[in-house]
Amino acid sequence: MAVPVAAAGAGARPRLDLQFLQRFLQIQKVLFPSWSSQNALMFLTLLCVALLKQLVIYQVGLIPSQYYGVLGNKDLDGFKTLTFLAVVLIVLNSMLKSFDQFTCNLLYVSWRKDLTEHLHRFYFQGRVYYTLNVLRDDVDNPDQRISQDVERFCRQLSSMASKLIISPFTLIYYTYQCFQSTGWLGPASIFGYFILGTLVNKMLMGPIVAKLVQQEKLEGDFRFKHMQIRVNAEPAAFFRAGHVEHVRTDRRLQRLLQTQRELMSKELWLYLGVNTFDYLGSILSYVVIAIPIFSGVYGDLSPTELSTLVSKNAFVCIYLISCFTGLIDLSGTFSDVAGYTHRIGELQETLLDMSLKSRGGEVLDESEWDVDRAPEWPVAEPTDTAFLLERVSICAPSSNKPLIRDLSLRISEGQSLLITGNTGTGKTSLLRVLGGLWASTRGESQPSLPLSQPWAGGMRVRACRCVHVRTCACVCVKVQAFLLGRGNERHLLCLGDLKMEVSVGPAGSVQMLTDFGPHGVLFLPQKPFFTDGTLREQVIYPLKEIYPDSGSTDDERIMRFLELAGLSSLVTRTEGLDQQVDWNWYDVLSPGEMQRLSFARLFYLQPKYAVLDEATSALTEEVESELYRIGQQLGMTFISVGHRHSLERFHSLVLKLCGEGRWELTRIKVE
Amino acid sequence: MAVPVAAAGAGARPRLDLQFLQRFLQIQKVLFPSWSSQNALMFLTLLCVALLKQLVIYQVGLIPSQYYGVLGNKDLDGFKTLTFLAVVLIVLNSMLKSFDQFTCNLLYVSWRKDLTEHLHRFYFQGRVYYTLNVLRDDVDNPDQRISQDVERFCRQLSSMASKLIISPFTLIYYTYQCFQSTGWLGPASIFGYFILGTLVNKMLMGPIVAKLVQQEKLEGDFRFKHMQIRVNAEPAAFFRAGHVEHVRTDRRLQRLLQTQRELMSKELWLYLGVNTFDYLGSILSYVVIAIPIFSGVYGDLSPTELSTLVSKNAFVCIYLISCFTGLIDLSGTFSDVAGYTHRIGELQETLLDMSLKSRGGEVLDESEWDVDRAPEWPVAEPTDTAFLLERVSICAPSSNKPLIRDLSLRISEGQSLLITGNTGTGKTSLLRVLGGLWASTRGESQPSLPLSQPWAGGMRVRACRCVHVRTCACVCVKVQAFLLGRGNERHLLCLGDLKMEVSVGPAGSVQMLTDFGPHGVLFLPQKPFFTDGTLREQVIYPLKEIYPDSGSTDDERIMRFLELAGLSSLVTRTEGLDQQVDWNWYDVLSPGEMQRLSFARLFYLQPKYAVLDEATSALTEEVESELYRIGQQLGMTFISVGHRHSLERFHSLVLKLCGEGRWELTRIKVE
Repeated sequence: MAVPVAAAGAGARPRLDLQFLQRFLQIQKVLFPSWSSQNALMFLTLLCVALLKQLVIYQVGLIPSQYYGVLGNKDLDGFKTLTFLAVVLIVLNSMLKSFDQFTCNLLYVSWRKDLTEHLHRFYFQGRVYYTLNVLRDDVDNPDQRISQDVERFCRQLSSMASKLIISPFTLIYYTYQCFQSTGWLGPASIFGYFILGTLVNKMLMGPIVAKLVQQEKLEGDFRFKHMQIRVNAEPAAFFRAGHVEHVRTDRRLQRLLQTQRELMSKELWLYLGVNTFDYLGSILSYVVIAIPIFSGVYGDLSPTELSTLVSKNAFVCIYLISCFTGLIDLSGTFSDVAGYTHRIGELQETLLDMSLKSRGGEVLDESEWDVDRAPEWPVAEPTDTAFLLERVSICAPSSNKPLIRDLSLRISEGQSLLITGNTGTGKTSLLRVLGGLWASTRGESQPSLPLSQPWAGGMRVRACRCVHVRTCACVCVKVQAFLLGRGNERHLLCLGDLKMEVSVGPAGSVQMLTDFGPHGVLFLPQKPFFTDGTLREQVIYPLKEIYPDSGSTDDERIMRFLELAGLSSLVTRTEGLDQQVDWNWYDVLSPGEMQRLSFARLFYLQPKYAVLDEATSALTEEVESELYRIGQQLGMTFISVGHRHSLERFHSLVLKLCGEGRWELTRIKVE
Repeated sequence: MAVPVAAAGAGARPRLDLQFLQRFLQIQKVLFPSWSSQNALMFLTLLCVALLKQLVIYQVGLIPSQYYGVLGNKDLDGFKTLTFLAVVLIVLNSMLKSFDQFTCNLLYVSWRKDLTEHLHRFYFQGRVYYTLNVLRDDVDNPDQRISQDVERFCRQLSSMASKLIISPFTLIYYTYQCFQSTGWLGPASIFGYFILGTLVNKMLMGPIVAKLVQQEKLEGDFRFKHMQIRVNAEPAAFFRAGHVEHVRTDRRLQRLLQTQRELMSKELWLYLGVNTFDYLGSILSYVVIAIPIFSGVYGDLSPTELSTLVSKNAFVCIYLISCFTGLIDLSGTFSDVAGYTHRIGELQETLLDMSLKSRGGEVLDESEWDVDRAPEWPVAEPTDTAFLLERVSICAPSSNKPLIRDLSLRISEGQSLLITGNTGTGKTSLLRVLGGLWASTRGESQPSLPLSQPWAGGMRVRACRCVHVRTCACVCVKVQAFLLGRGNERHLLCLGDLKMEVSVGPAGSVQMLTDFGPHGVLFLPQKPFFTDGTLREQVIYPLKEIYPDSGSTDDERIMRFLELAGLSSLVTRTEGLDQQVDWNWYDVLSPGEMQRLSFARLFYLQPKYAVLDEATSALTEEVESELYRIGQQLGMTFISVGHRHSLERFHSLVLKLCGEGRWELTRIKVE
C-alpha cells in the first residue's frame, strides 16, 4: 500500500551544493552525449532564434513611439509606411516567438526520450526494479521519478535554459539603451528601484514562507487523515469509530483553516508591496525622462519629438524592469529544476551502483529469458535436479530472526514437493530464495578454490565463477552438475580451456540447476501477474516479446489450454484471442478466473518444474485437482505452497514449516 | 489498493445542463445559508471593493496620457502635481487590489469550512464512510472529493465570482470611453477584431484539443504502466519479466512522445495565431485613433494634446481587449468549477440519499457508541446472549454465490466460539455480518405482525421495530429477549404503552442482543486500527473523544495492561503515555506489536464479548496463549477466527467453514 508521505518535502529547499553540480552534470551527459548530437544542435538553434527574437522585439517595442511621431505631425504617408512596417515586424516577431516555443518543445521531447530511456535501461536490468521497489527503502517512488520528475525536469529546463543564457545580453543592451536616452540616471534609478523592491519583497516574504510550509503540512495532514479513513474504513466501522473520527478530522480541518487565515493576513502586506511596486514601476519611466527634459537637455526638440522620446523611453524602462522580474521568476523555476535534479540524480546513482554490483557479483543470478543467446553455444540440457539446497538459512531482509534454519533439500524430476505452514512461517520467502529474489546466506566470506588446485572431495560447492564472460551461466551449471557427481566427459573436456574458480564453503548454498523459462522452471506467484494486452498475450506471456512470430501460429493449442483451464467463456468475452482490450485485467477477472488464466499460461509454456504459491486458493477442490491432474499429464514436477490436504496426492514430499526456523520434511506414501 | 484510473476524465467535458444548475444551487445553499449570513456579507463587500477598484484603475490608466501632456508642455508644476496624484492613486489602487485579494481569500476559507463541515456531517454519520468506500462503487474517491475537490472548487469560485459579476460593467464602461474618443469606429473594430481572433483561435484549437486529450491519456497510460510494475514488482521478478516489461514500457513511452511531437507541430500554428493576435491588438489602438486624426476631426489640437489623446486611447483600447481576453480566460476557470460542481454534487446527493435510507430503514443498525444517550432511559442491561443467528445465509455484496448457507448459532456468555476454515470460505464475512457491516438476508419481503394480533408461537422473529423513536434500540432488544423465551414481567409490562411491530418470517435473522462497546461487544478486526495521537489515546481508543476527562486518570491501569500485553518497552519509546508523537503508528510498530497493542486496548476496555479476527497471527503460540489467558481472567467470551489448533483450548465451540455454503459446528470437550 503506497501511503503518501504527508506533504512530502514541501518545505525542504533543494540544496545547491557540489553534489547538485555533480548530479546536474551527470544528467547533462545523458542529455548531450556529444557536441554534434541532435540535442546539442537543437539547443544551438534555440539560442540563435532567441537572440534574433530579442532584436525584433526591440524594433517592435519602438513602434508606439514612432506612432507618436507620425500622428503628432499628421504625416499620412509616414503613418502608412509605419503601419506596413509594424505589421511586417509583428508577423516576423510572432513567427520567431512561435518557432522559439516550438524548438523548446521539441528539445523537451528529445531530452525526455533520452533521459527516460537511459533510466529504463538500468531499471529493467536484471531484477533491479524488484530490489529497488521492494527491498530498498532509501530511494522513494522510483516509478514517479522516472515518469513524472523526468517529465517536469525536461520541461522546466527547456523553458528556462535559453532565457537564462540570453538574459545577460538583454540586460546589458537595454541598460545601454536606457543610458542613451536618460544618461546614467535612468539605469541607476531602475537598478536602485529594483534592489529596493527585492529587499522589501524578501522582508515581507520571510514570515510567509514559514506559514506556507506549515499550511502545506497541515493540508497534507488533512488529506492523509481522509486517506487513512478510506483505507481503514472496515476496521473503523468495526470499532464504530464514525463519531470519533468525525471529531478528529474536523479538528485537523480547523487547524488547517486557522493557519490559512493567519497566512492570509500576512499575505495582505505582501500584496500591498507587490502591487505598489508593479504600478510605481510604470510611472518611474516618466519620472526618469522628466529630469533631462526639465533640466533642458532636450531643449531643441518639438513636442511631437518629445512624445516619441517619452514613449520610447517608457518602453526601454519597462522592458528593463521586466527583464529583472523575469530573472526573479526564473529563480523559482531554477529551484524546481534543482529539486528534480536531486531526485533524478539520486535514482541514477542508485541504479548505476546496483548495476555495477550485479555485474561484479552474482553472475549466476542473471539468468533472464535468454533472448540473445549466441547460437554457437549449446543450450544447457536440463538436468534431472532443479534445486539443490544445502543447510540454507533464510531471514527476511532487514531482520536477523531466521524464518528457516539449516534447510537441506533436493528437488528432482518427478519428486513434487508440497510446502505447508502457518501464516508468517516463511513459505513464500522460501520461494523467493528459490527464485533468486532474496539472498539466502548472510554474506560470509567464501574461500575460493581454483580448479587447478587439488579439490577436496568432501567439501560442498557453494558457487562457481568462470573468468571468461558470456559462457559462464551455462557452463557453471554443467560444472556444478559434474561436481555433484553427474558430470559427463564431454563437459569436463571443455573445461580445459577455461580458467574456473570454484568456491567451496561450510554451509548455505542454493543452486538452481535448471534454466528458467519454458522447458525449465516457471513460477506462478501468489499474486497473479497480468500485463496489458490481448488474451493471447496473457496466455503466452512473456513469449510474445521474445518471439514476435509466436503471436499468430498456435491458436489451437491456446484454445485447448484455455478450455482445459475452464476459461472458454473468456474468449467470447474478449471477442477473440487477438482483440485489443482496453481494460485492466485485474479489474475484469475474478480471483478464481485469474488463477485459471495463470494455469492456462502454465499449460501453454509447459515447464518441467512449476512453482505454485497458493495458486489455487480461490478455486474449489475439484477444480484444483483437475488442474493439477492436467499439469501432471503434461509432465510437470510441482513445488507447491498450499493448505488443503487434498493437495497431498499430487506430491511425494511435504515440507512443513513450523515457524522460528523449525521444519519437517516427510515423504508421502503413494496409495 | 487504489489504482488510479488512467488519465481520469482528462477529456470528459463537464456537462452544463439542468443537473449542473441543480447541483450548483444545492452547493450554493450550503455556502450561503441565508442573506444575512457571514458569507453573504463578505461576498457583498467583495463586490463593492471590486467595483471601486475598477474606478481607480481607470484613473491610474489615464496617468501616462497626462504625462504626455505635462512633459510635452514642459509644465514643471503640472508634473509635480501629476506625480503626487499618481503616487496617491497608485497607493489607493494597490490598497484596493490587495484588499480585494484578501477578501477573496477569506471568502475561500469560509466557504471551504462550511462545505467541508457539511459533507463531514453526512460522511461520518452511522457507517456511511464504510458503505461508500467499500461497498459502493458509483462514487469514486470520496476522500479526495472532500479534501481536494472542495478546496479547489472554493478557490476557483472565490477568484472567479467577483470578476464574472463585474465584467459586464467594465465592458460597457470602456466601450463607452472608446466610443467617446473615436466614435463608433473604435468599439466596432475592437469587437470585430476580437470576434475574428476568437474564431481563428477556435479553428486552430480544434485539432489540438483532441490531440491533447490523447496525450493526457497516453501520459496516464505510461504512468500507470510504471505504477503497475512497482505494485507487481514481485510477481514480475518471479517471471523474470524485466526485459519484456522494458520493451512494453518503452513502447508506451515512444507512443506518448510521438503524440507529443504531433501535438507540438499542431501547436506551432496556434502559437503563430495567438502571438500575432496579441501584438496586432496593441497596434490596433493607434490605427483606430489615426482615422479621426487624419480625417480632421481633431484639427484644432496641438501636438501635445494629440499625444495625450493617443496615449489615453491606447489605454482604453488595450484595456477593452484585455477585458475580453479576461472573459475567455474565465471560461477555463468556469469549466473547472463546473467539473468540481458535478463531483461534489454527486457526492452530496449520494450522502443525502444514504442518510435518508439509514434513517428510514434499519434503526437497530445505528447502535453507535452511545454518546448522547438521554439519562432518563435505562441502559440496556446486557443479556447473557450476544448474538443469535437463525438460518442465516451470507453472500458477498454484488455476488449471488452464498459463502455460508442456513447458519444457526447462539453465542452466549462463557461459550467461546472458534471459527476456522480456508482462505475465502467467509470467516471475515461472517464477522462483518455480526458487526452489522453487511446485511445477511437477501432483502426478501418480510410480513410484519403488530403485537396486538395473536402471535403464532412457532414462527421465528426476524426483526422488531417500534414506532416510537429513541427508545427502540433498547426496547427491541428486550422484546426479542422476551419472545425468545427469556423475557421477564417488568419488560413485558412496559410494552403496553408502545405500538410495536414484530416482523416474523421464514428464515435469516441476525440479532445482536448486547450493546456495542465496553461492557458489551468489541471487535478486533484483522487489520489493527490505530488513529493518530498519543499512546494513551491508542489504548483507550475511542473513549478519549467521548469522555475527555478519561485522559488523565487511570495511568496505573493503562500501564498494567500495556505490561500484560508485553509492551512496556513501547512506553519508553514514546517517552510516556501523553507524549505527542508525530509518527504514523502503522509505520513504527511491527505487526506483532500492533497486535499486542490491540490486545492492550481490549484489556483496557474489558468488553463482555471480544470478536477477534486472526488477532494473534503475527505472535508466537506462547504469547497467544498468554493473551487469551488474561482475556479469560478478565471475564471475556471470545469469538475468534484463527488457524492454530492451540487456540481450541480457549473455546468451547468450533465452527468450521468448508466453502460453498457448508459448515460444521462441533463442541470441544474440556479436558
